[in-house]
Amino acid sequence: MGKDIIADHARWPRLEDEIFKVNKECKEAIKEKGRDKVIDSTLGTLIDDDGNLIAFDSVYDTLKNMDKKSIASYAAIEGNEAYLDLLVDKCFGPYKPDAYIKAIATAGGTGAIRHSFWTFLNPGDYVICPNWYWPAYQTMCEEFDREFKTYEFLDKDFNFNLEEFKKTLDFALENRDRVLCVFNSPANNPTGFSIDDAMWDEILDVIKKRAAAGKFISILLDVAYIEFAGDGSQKKFFEKFSSLPENIITTVAYSMSKSYTAYGIRTGACIIISSNGDFANRAFDSMKHSNRSIWSNITHAGMNILVDIENDEEKKKSYEDELKANRQLLEKRAKAFVESAKEVDLIHLPYFGGFFISIPCDNPKEVAEKLKEKDMYIVSNKNGLRFAVCAVSEDKCKIAPKLIKEAIDEVNK
Amino acid sequence: MGKDIIADHARWPRLEDEIFKVNKECKEAIKEKGRDKVIDSTLGTLIDDDGNLIAFDSVYDTLKNMDKKSIASYAAIEGNEAYLDLLVDKCFGPYKPDAYIKAIATAGGTGAIRHSFWTFLNPGDYVICPNWYWPAYQTMCEEFDREFKTYEFLDKDFNFNLEEFKKTLDFALENRDRVLCVFNSPANNPTGFSIDDAMWDEILDVIKKRAAAGKFISILLDVAYIEFAGDGSQKKFFEKFSSLPENIITTVAYSMSKSYTAYGIRTGACIIISSNGDFANRAFDSMKHSNRSIWSNITHAGMNILVDIENDEEKKKSYEDELKANRQLLEKRAKAFVESAKEVDLIHLPYFGGFFISIPCDNPKEVAEKLKEKDMYIVSNKNGLRFAVCAVSEDKCKIAPKLIKEAIDEVNK
Repeated sequence: MGKDIIADHARWPRLEDEIFKVNKECKEAIKEKGRDKVIDSTLGTLIDDDGNLIAFDSVYDTLKNMDKKSIASYAAIEGNEAYLDLLVDKCFGPYKPDAYIKAIATAGGTGAIRHSFWTFLNPGDYVICPNWYWPAYQTMCEEFDREFKTYEFLDKDFNFNLEEFKKTLDFALENRDRVLCVFNSPANNPTGFSIDDAMWDEILDVIKKRAAAGKFISILLDVAYIEFAGDGSQKKFFEKFSSLPENIITTVAYSMSKSYTAYGIRTGACIIISSNGDFANRAFDSMKHSNRSIWSNITHAGMNILVDIENDEEKKKSYEDELKANRQLLEKRAKAFVESAKEVDLIHLPYFGGFFISIPCDNPKEVAEKLKEKDMYIVSNKNGLRFAVCAVSEDKCKIAPKLIKEAIDEVNK
Repeated sequence: MGKDIIADHARWPRLEDEIFKVNKECKEAIKEKGRDKVIDSTLGTLIDDDGNLIAFDSVYDTLKNMDKKSIASYAAIEGNEAYLDLLVDKCFGPYKPDAYIKAIATAGGTGAIRHSFWTFLNPGDYVICPNWYWPAYQTMCEEFDREFKTYEFLDKDFNFNLEEFKKTLDFALENRDRVLCVFNSPANNPTGFSIDDAMWDEILDVIKKRAAAGKFISILLDVAYIEFAGDGSQKKFFEKFSSLPENIITTVAYSMSKSYTAYGIRTGACIIISSNGDFANRAFDSMKHSNRSIWSNITHAGMNILVDIENDEEKKKSYEDELKANRQLLEKRAKAFVESAKEVDLIHLPYFGGFFISIPCDNPKEVAEKLKEKDMYIVSNKNGLRFAVCAVSEDKCKIAPKLIKEAIDEVNK
């Protein structure tokens, strides 16, 4: 018999939340020294210049005016039809792929990623992913016994590293029939990098060539930050997912968390794109089975918010105004950071949108520690630091690069 | 290579929602004939006598007065501490087991059941369950490759069938080291049956004997309807989960869905009870890993509602008054049904509380069809019919038994 009451596959050390820890330290520093004196680059949510979470009025007025019965009642297991239809339109804009498209409601973007890893891979198959990534991908691979393999995200000119992607794809398929390729673009977390349309053509060419051998290749587009990644043209790449070979299936993880400042409401969807209607339907069936097995149905109010806003011209206008204003806020902050970084010769990865800018460096953990001495609190990862333009005021975005540069030089002298 | 883009373990026919279908037919009948003429016993939520969903003012006023930032922000992955502490107190009342107790937030009760099936069983191990059960248990076993085995719930005198339970437990453990026993009590869905305290002693004796051989036995208490199952003494049985042998671990699936009329808010918790502190902690670690891998964190507003109500004497009083009034509404409806059933010799399973009463019969599907001719819409399962006292007015509860009896006699003549 096993020697542990926890089943073999389910034994994990406690997940420590590094971000939570450094955020806590930062809060203490603010309490002691005052908000003006501290740079809080720990959070992954939109924060105004006074340190308050931004929660769109258009979204929360809609919630507060909602009939309580519409909040209280269960939603359909697969999500309500109006929600899914409107979400698909909103996600793709005018660039809806020419393909069979089915959507299913999920708990945030997380749920859509979970479903993609679960439905298209067997245990032991690979998820491949650039080496600047959201750590939950790896946690999911552990949980579901998928292999997780990363490749160098960018080449020396800071373009998407097609060669490394190719090599890793070949490696993943060498002894397996299935692979899933994650692309967290546009406005990658943690870098703010977006894969451009020409590069998408090259990536899809590579995938199509590998698929010619009859292997099953899944593409997961995690577009959590897409609404903060441009004025609309950032959605043009979706068109490229038209008429792909049948053994390539694409899913889009769409989340209301960032785009509606509705992080805590846990509403998203997995959009399935396939040239084969039967495959799209059967992926939907598989994911509906998963929905029932893990959360039954998702937050009804979240779905209603999207439907209420999209169906009311006035509300929609208010929402879009708020979204635009906050996208511009991010752009201003990022511009301030990038300009200052240039002045002090701080190297960062190219930023095209979203909540974060990444600074590659050696000994990132030590650099983050050093920055605390300079009253700056920032999240580090294996490759560098994640600066949160979503959370830091424009003024502080101007100051931050110099502090970071100094800390890097001091640690890595 | 596999011949299907869906991975081997993830291929399922589309889940058809029988309840949704019959509910739709019922709505059409109401539209055509008027609400007065139709008995709608399709729903699993509290419905007032005018056919409206009951949503507690105390709950939804709390939500509507909540700071939007507290709704918008992410909760902790494992759930917020105040929420978990208050929920544990609320769940157990004065009958908290003398054991190590850890709780983790989950998406409704569903999430807590999912975690229990996942964390304590390996693929191929058995979940054993009475043969009147919530169908999602079986869906979860399919999803996670656990075996699902049911046993005859009640003996001929309508007591819990200890002999059948024993046999099934022995069967499940014959070639395996782990088993999970589901008990949806008090106020079982779909029967309204509650296992009494003396029977719990016998059940636990059986389990302790089997555990003596060193096998790992998990007990899942699905208490979704517990707040509608009595005036408080229905929680006394929790005390019995004190000081059990270390190789028995208990989890409680607690849900705000019914107890707060917050079905659509998807907030619950898995409460872990163990005599071994390390086991409790490591089960928590495993489930936190699962949380991150499937939904990241759950609806923040749901947790805040519980905390706000429990921490405010006035709100708490309003909430408890509403809960009591609705429990009494259910009791009155059930009493009307039971009395009428007696008059017409309609056999039903013993009802002790909750949303449903079950009527065992042959050919339940045909009986449910026949009842449509009598303008009554009811959900059938393998063993009989599920009458929804949660959804049918007292007057109609009086009429229903005669219609059901007639339909059974007509179909099974």
